[in-house]
Amino acid sequence: MEMISQNKSFDGWHKQYRHRSEVLNCEMRFAIYLPPQAVQGQDVPVLYWLSGLTCSDENFMQKAGAQRVAADLGIAIVAADTSPRGDGVANADQYDLGQGAGFYVNATQQPWSKHYRMYDYIVSELPALIEATFPVTSKRAISGHSMGGHGALTIALKNPAMFSSVSAFSPISNPVNCPWGQQAFTAYLGKDRELWKQHDASELMKSAEVRIPALVDQGEADNFLVEQLKPEALQAAAEASDYPLRLRLHAGYDHSYYFIASFIEEHLRFHAEYLGA
Amino acid sequence: MEMISQNKSFDGWHKQYRHRSEVLNCEMRFAIYLPPQAVQGQDVPVLYWLSGLTCSDENFMQKAGAQRVAADLGIAIVAADTSPRGDGVANADQYDLGQGAGFYVNATQQPWSKHYRMYDYIVSELPALIEATFPVTSKRAISGHSMGGHGALTIALKNPAMFSSVSAFSPISNPVNCPWGQQAFTAYLGKDRELWKQHDASELMKSAEVRIPALVDQGEADNFLVEQLKPEALQAAAEASDYPLRLRLHAGYDHSYYFIASFIEEHLRFHAEYLGA
Repeated sequence: MEMISQNKSFDGWHKQYRHRSEVLNCEMRFAIYLPPQAVQGQDVPVLYWLSGLTCSDENFMQKAGAQRVAADLGIAIVAADTSPRGDGVANADQYDLGQGAGFYVNATQQPWSKHYRMYDYIVSELPALIEATFPVTSKRAISGHSMGGHGALTIALKNPAMFSSVSAFSPISNPVNCPWGQQAFTAYLGKDRELWKQHDASELMKSAEVRIPALVDQGEADNFLVEQLKPEALQAAAEASDYPLRLRLHAGYDHSYYFIASFIEEHLRFHAEYLGA
Repeated sequence: MEMISQNKSFDGWHKQYRHRSEVLNCEMRFAIYLPPQAVQGQDVPVLYWLSGLTCSDENFMQKAGAQRVAADLGIAIVAADTSPRGDGVANADQYDLGQGAGFYVNATQQPWSKHYRMYDYIVSELPALIEATFPVTSKRAISGHSMGGHGALTIALKNPAMFSSVSAFSPISNPVNCPWGQQAFTAYLGKDRELWKQHDASELMKSAEVRIPALVDQGEADNFLVEQLKPEALQAAAEASDYPLRLRLHAGYDHSYYFIASFIEEHLRFHAEYLGA
């Protein structure tokens, strides 16, 4: 693993690393924000952030304004990339499939299955690397935006013992019923829709048995709201299983990082409560 | 003038506009953040932000995390572009001259003089447009980063009646004595170094008669500190003229927006004190 940049930020450090991923079979980059408490030798809990379509580890770190609050609370943040990357990695001529669009699943179909195993990368390889390398505890929370909101919700619902809380901004809440999800799941998982449901937040929430607190924020002026995001499916699932979901709709806000920045402090304070930070 | 984007942000609005600049003889873009107080009908003071080399109106609005504090204080922020732009506008094959590198002067030399009049644009045309269009008062402050820190300091020192306070991050403090400044001033203003001094913050501060409060933050791990920025010249000038400059050096911080984000709240609260916001 190699550090490729570092910037002091709110008395802590933002750092980018490059490492060889065994799971993804390629070189990957991630970013970590270490708050001042970690710099001073304290082990801190970690919030994992999963980004949306086209993003890398950089969008959240540069645009969300999260470091100020993480420094205050003593929480590290890890921002992952959104897919395997590189010349040898399968790709598509569109922004919503292939590189930048891994959808946080393990692909079973050609040509994707050689590299596209983002589910295992986020659930296993990356946390193991983080916890072996940095001054962090094994207390974890997870959050994300859009495709990354889908990733955060599905990974938390499938692994509730790993995370103390989950949140999302503008998540793809019911991918089996929207064009982004149907396209990606067909390509990565094949045509069996029963398999798709194992990576659908609304399907998983309906039948969740172990429940961790969930916070979801959605802008009402989001261009993707009706066709792609479908928070009403998640709300219905939560009602069906009595899941502790707090879904908030915000008038006037769109799908951008201006929306995320406006509410990220509330997400961090929500996670801090369950992380004990 | 045409609005080309808008995003709700901290209960206010970030908006980008395109307009024809008579001064620059081309089409220009700027961004404005209108805090919730302005949306609710109150006239608010304005902080003008000048960006550094290669930047547009977007860098500060996306990365500085300023809107949260501006919303709290009731201050509008206007982020200008860093030069004239477009196919018909002179350019150079380098990042530190031509488009993206206007240096906030009025060029007198060919081929620059047809468009490169950023001094007049920031001092006259843009504030007149802002004050004719938006719910703002005529109370103004000015700030900027790097080349934009040079711009903010020199424009405030030359026009102290226009602004109630000035601040800068990592400014080019003594451009007549650094490579960036010498290259730009030779190209835009010609070889007469006496003319250059009229756009050098340290030279202007030495002889300032009307003094507005100034705050400057500089990272000590800034790659450009020794060769290009020279805050020690500004400090010496302030001591010579007893100028109310507060210059702060910050261990470990670099030239990036992570540095700006870490201290922007203090700059906004500094300006608010003199703006009466």
